Amino acid sequence: MRVPVYYGDYLRLDRLLSSQEPESARTGINAHDEMLFIIVHQAYELWFKQILHELDRVEADFGAIPVTDDAMARIVHGLNRVHEILKLVVAQLDVLETMTPFDFLDFRDLLMPASGFQSLQFRLIETRLGLPPETRIPFDEKAIDERLSQSDRDALRAAGVRPSLFDLLNRWLARTPFLDWGGETFREAYRAAVEKHLARDAELVRADPAIPPEKRDRELKNIERATTSFSEIFSETDEGGSWRLLPQSVQAALFITLYRDKPAVQPAFRLLTVLMDIDETLTLWRYRHALMVERMIGLKIGTGGSSGHAYLRMTAERHRIFSDLFRLSTFLIPRSAVPELPAPIQKQMRFVYAS
Amino acid sequence: MRVPVYYGDYLRLDRLLSSQEPESARTGINAHDEMLFIIVHQAYELWFKQILHELDRVEADFGAIPVTDDAMARIVHGLNRVHEILKLVVAQLDVLETMTPFDFLDFRDLLMPASGFQSLQFRLIETRLGLPPETRIPFDEKAIDERLSQSDRDALRAAGVRPSLFDLLNRWLARTPFLDWGGETFREAYRAAVEKHLARDAELVRADPAIPPEKRDRELKNIERATTSFSEIFSETDEGGSWRLLPQSVQAALFITLYRDKPAVQPAFRLLTVLMDIDETLTLWRYRHALMVERMIGLKIGTGGSSGHAYLRMTAERHRIFSDLFRLSTFLIPRSAVPELPAPIQKQMRFVYAS
Amino acid sequence: MRVPVYYGDYLRLDRLLSSQEPESARTGINAHDEMLFIIVHQAYELWFKQILHELDRVEADFGAIPVTDDAMARIVHGLNRVHEILKLVVAQLDVLETMTPFDFLDFRDLLMPASGFQSLQFRLIETRLGLPPETRIPFDEKAIDERLSQSDRDALRAAGVRPSLFDLLNRWLARTPFLDWGGETFREAYRAAVEKHLARDAELVRADPAIPPEKRDRELKNIERATTSFSEIFSETDEGGSWRLLPQSVQAALFITLYRDKPAVQPAFRLLTVLMDIDETLTLWRYRHALMVERMIGLKIGTGGSSGHAYLRMTAERHRIFSDLFRLSTFLIPRSAVPELPAPIQKQMRFVYAS
Amino acid sequence: MRVPVYYGDYLRLDRLLSSQEPESARTGINAHDEMLFIIVHQAYELWFKQILHELDRVEADFGAIPVTDDAMARIVHGLNRVHEILKLVVAQLDVLETMTPFDFLDFRDLLMPASGFQSLQFRLIETRLGLPPETRIPFDEKAIDERLSQSDRDALRAAGVRPSLFDLLNRWLARTPFLDWGGETFREAYRAAVEKHLARDAELVRADPAIPPEKRDRELKNIERATTSFSEIFSETDEGGSWRLLPQSVQAALFITLYRDKPAVQPAFRLLTVLMDIDETLTLWRYRHALMVERMIGLKIGTGGSSGHAYLRMTAERHRIFSDLFRLSTFLIPRSAVPELPAPIQKQMRFVYAS
Repeated sequence: MRVPVYYGDYLRLDRLLSSQEPESARTGINAHDEMLFIIVHQAYELWFKQILHELDRVEADFGAIPVTDDAMARIVHGLNRVHEILKLVVAQLDVLETMTPFDFLDFRDLLMPASGFQSLQFRLIETRLGLPPETRIPFDEKAIDERLSQSDRDALRAAGVRPSLFDLLNRWLARTPFLDWGGETFREAYRAAVEKHLARDAELVRADPAIPPEKRDRELKNIERATTSFSEIFSETDEGGSWRLLPQSVQAALFITLYRDKPAVQPAFRLLTVLMDIDETLTLWRYRHALMVERMIGLKIGTGGSSGHAYLRMTAERHRIFSDLFRLSTFLIPRSAVPELPAPIQKQMRFVYAS
Repeated sequence: MRVPVYYGDYLRLDRLLSSQEPESARTGINAHDEMLFIIVHQAYELWFKQILHELDRVEADFGAIPVTDDAMARIVHGLNRVHEILKLVVAQLDVLETMTPFDFLDFRDLLMPASGFQSLQFRLIETRLGLPPETRIPFDEKAIDERLSQSDRDALRAAGVRPSLFDLLNRWLARTPFLDWGGETFREAYRAAVEKHLARDAELVRADPAIPPEKRDRELKNIERATTSFSEIFSETDEGGSWRLLPQSVQAALFITLYRDKPAVQPAFRLLTVLMDIDETLTLWRYRHALMVERMIGLKIGTGGSSGHAYLRMTAERHRIFSDLFRLSTFLIPRSAVPELPAPIQKQMRFVYAS
Repeated sequence: MRVPVYYGDYLRLDRLLSSQEPESARTGINAHDEMLFIIVHQAYELWFKQILHELDRVEADFGAIPVTDDAMARIVHGLNRVHEILKLVVAQLDVLETMTPFDFLDFRDLLMPASGFQSLQFRLIETRLGLPPETRIPFDEKAIDERLSQSDRDALRAAGVRPSLFDLLNRWLARTPFLDWGGETFREAYRAAVEKHLARDAELVRADPAIPPEKRDRELKNIERATTSFSEIFSETDEGGSWRLLPQSVQAALFITLYRDKPAVQPAFRLLTVLMDIDETLTLWRYRHALMVERMIGLKIGTGGSSGHAYLRMTAERHRIFSDLFRLSTFLIPRSAVPELPAPIQKQMRFVYAS
Repeated sequence: MRVPVYYGDYLRLDRLLSSQEPESARTGINAHDEMLFIIVHQAYELWFKQILHELDRVEADFGAIPVTDDAMARIVHGLNRVHEILKLVVAQLDVLETMTPFDFLDFRDLLMPASGFQSLQFRLIETRLGLPPETRIPFDEKAIDERLSQSDRDALRAAGVRPSLFDLLNRWLARTPFLDWGGETFREAYRAAVEKHLARDAELVRADPAIPPEKRDRELKNIERATTSFSEIFSETDEGGSWRLLPQSVQAALFITLYRDKPAVQPAFRLLTVLMDIDETLTLWRYRHALMVERMIGLKIGTGGSSGHAYLRMTAERHRIFSDLFRLSTFLIPRSAVPELPAPIQKQMRFVYAS
């Protein structure tokens, strides 16, 4: 007979609820709000552990070749969960902000030089999602790494060696079928469609007698500029390219975006969507965090000696991971101008039972 | 020189992040979602600890006689934090609901008979807020107590002996000054105002020739009924009373509600408001929890052998703590009918600097 | 040349922002919070219009036979939007609750007998989702209908004639392929699996010498009871059945729940999930609304003469639409006990490109 | 007899629900998501109207000299409501983001050159809160103004002439009593306390033999720098000052922050808090809005010809209104180092009844 499980034992509440050790208690100050500070950060770390747990399964499923359809469902499901957790993590700031700057000051100096920058799990999440170590903004002229303990640094390096979610996405997109349309490629078909669309626009402008000449010239120049800008998406090599994705992966992502309702790419479209959701919510968390730090410590340096909110705000701008996906929106054309899928491709993208 | 603090040590991440011990791992099943289940509940327990930490200070501040003005500010601040935490705790259900019933089934039976009903900290919160043990709905014909370990039961009993927040509120309200208006009491003045107001209503109905007789009778009967119902609030003894608050506390709460903008009762009004916020959000959590359980296990019994969601739904209805405050709304009359504060009372309720 | 569009004209702000006509202004009272009351309800009505707009497209897409795969993606997308809107609508209560009961009293009587029960659009949403008119709880002994104007009543009746989302779901589920497994049906295979699973459970109990006889009897009785209860799901006729869905639709929903990751039913699983989300969030809104009304007017009757929060609370319990889907969870068995899909069925459920 | 009010008439649903006129319907395209686009923006405008309604009362109450205690309660209450509305307005983005970039493209070009920058009410809110017209970042090299219609421009100018909430705050703070402490001013007392606190810090560093010389020098230099930076808060003139608040208002805000729990400044502290909440949530809305625009249109220019998200992001940084209040946190010292209130001042800050 199985030993009956008791709630408190199962959750290891003995350990969990004895892990709050305020520094201020040690010094006899007993700053009331230090408990809140500890618990908020511990709750963050619990959620970070869960995010890493999800990323583990995503990596296993998404690293396989091919990625099975069942696995795709699991991947999207897991990433949606990550997104929900990130939303919760943002909401936690509402609780933390019930601490006033003056109350924080009761124990702030005791924590030096500890800092949220030392959260190994958060660094792991960034790395596993695909933030390249070399793009990480140095902080206080020192690489973030230097603030980590040796063992944490090792763990971070080990994670850096594994393929990130970005890497897996890049490879998987590059393998997308359906882009060879027989006589021509999707790339060629889309390029022709773009050109036709822009030419029609130009023609309309030229043919409209009601537009004053000056405005006409401006609009025609705009269309010309658009034509040039579209070339970014048609490059077949990544030489000098500004994309982080491979050229064929960019094409695939564009294809999925345009034909998202076709059965075979429905899960792929959901994947791209949830990756943008994750990127956006993570960015939002960084930004709200920056605002909170500004409110909490003004222009003073953070507990880790950081110049605090300015740095955090910068990471919100520059520690983006899937910005290529956001950028794709620039290169869409209206539905009516999008090339129709060739019949054989269309058929391939159905479920068997529909044939 | 102080030893420099390291983030991971400060938060005891070694203990915290090694406290997840899935039962399914022990049996070799490795149910992926059990980690989520554990972490959600651990996050709950962390927040419960914080709530109890706040209630400790509130008890210390609010148990003093008199409650100083500084203490009042702290009490309201602390309870607002409890409210924010409860909102977060409700939001956590969004994350838990990313677990499907079918995935839950992977490990559900392994947890028997553990159950959320065994959360000592949650029971403590209920008790400390003021849920009287005798009104606790028995579950499965057994008192909830019987499901607790001996030490948890002892802790709960010990908490039951201390005055609850409800008790402290009741006593504090009963001490409210300002209710003796010289010649008459606030009670008498308000009773007269209510009667005058209702009499005027009746007169208007009687005097309006456009109202058909049948409707007139109905409206007059309604006014009569209102008159009777108001008597509930004017009783001077609590004999046979349906209020949990003392009669003089009911009067004080009513007074605070009506004259909320007077400096001396502004903090008191904020206190009543946040107590209703807490009651409401706790109720909402119980209800959402019930819905979630229904979705997760349908009509099956819960992990603790409970008939689950039906019980939870009942607690949402009946484990209310500050319902007397909600009920007060029934006994308000329009601003224009409310008796004016006598000048001496009005003066007493100002700040010194304004005099 | 197209006339350039101006923001304020496009949004018809002239009309929109002149549609707030407080009753209290008419009487010269100028109750400050009446504006909030009007605007909250107008915002509700705008969102209701959007929900109906989505339901229109869902009906068009989901009413077709067969429902194309592209249409399925649109349906799920539209319903996810409805769910997001409902979450916002719940959040609006946070704003409305900044109005105190005492401030509401400033204009409450002026609105009699208007009531939220008269929101035609909300009634339409309920009806279009599938709340059967005959199950609508009468209010104040009168059908809700009687409180509507003639034209609103007509609109509601007209909507009642169209197939509701529930009806469309029911028919669509009943047409699900994949349930005929050649020699046997999914129903038969699942029944055998359930029986085997429960028999194994009973055997384990009987074979364990560590279980005391009394406990053993109780557990065996539980298993027996489970066996009986499962029969509910295997009935082939809906005679005396307690399901609102057709027997074959129940089977299909169960099938989709168990094999949710197979490509051909992934969209179907998402559909069932979002319908439960909608039902749950709508229920939550009803419940929070009930709490808010209780707080706002205590035990007094609502502006429409309603006994208010008690009625609303009842609708939360009984105006559920997709409760059959929640109930399905009762009839799941662990993954390891679920019958494997026959190979030909499995193949049918793939995408073509995978064959 | 009063005419009975009907829900739909009261809310002017005839006008409200006929104010959605999609451009795409006019052209026969019928872009499904244009309805969502219109309704989201109309909901924004309704909430903006409510915010302006609250600001009207705040202005009336806060513009009086002196501001009565009752008025203070109303002001804080009203601004808390504004904050709740802003939170809702942020949440609305979750709904808008269910529109994909590709679906937006169906009608985007039809709206040119209309743009959210033309929302008169939003401009009014900014102006009334206190965004000075001259600090408004020009857009596309043109002042935002130029994009407004003549009547909208006039309305905006008229609002600019009235004292903004920032102005009212500035004047009101400057009138704060309690800063003259008899022999010395609060400014002097606080300056002495700061100097003593920093001197003690320096002494501790010098006296600790365990600190290596290099580190010691660095820490001493830091303390010196802190000393200099504190001078910003002690300036008695605003010449060359970097504060937008008057010097005496800065002092008052600091005083309120430090002695927040004293009865007479409790409402003032709540006021400063809610102003920071509003500033923060407004900033967050701008930022999330920028992210949403980036996602929706990539690098393309916005519907108003704007370079879109970059501009919005800049406004998040630079259209802050109450940043002086955030900055105050920089100048706090630990509770134990804060000068004690002189007894007469302390007495002045109580309620009469406490004396």
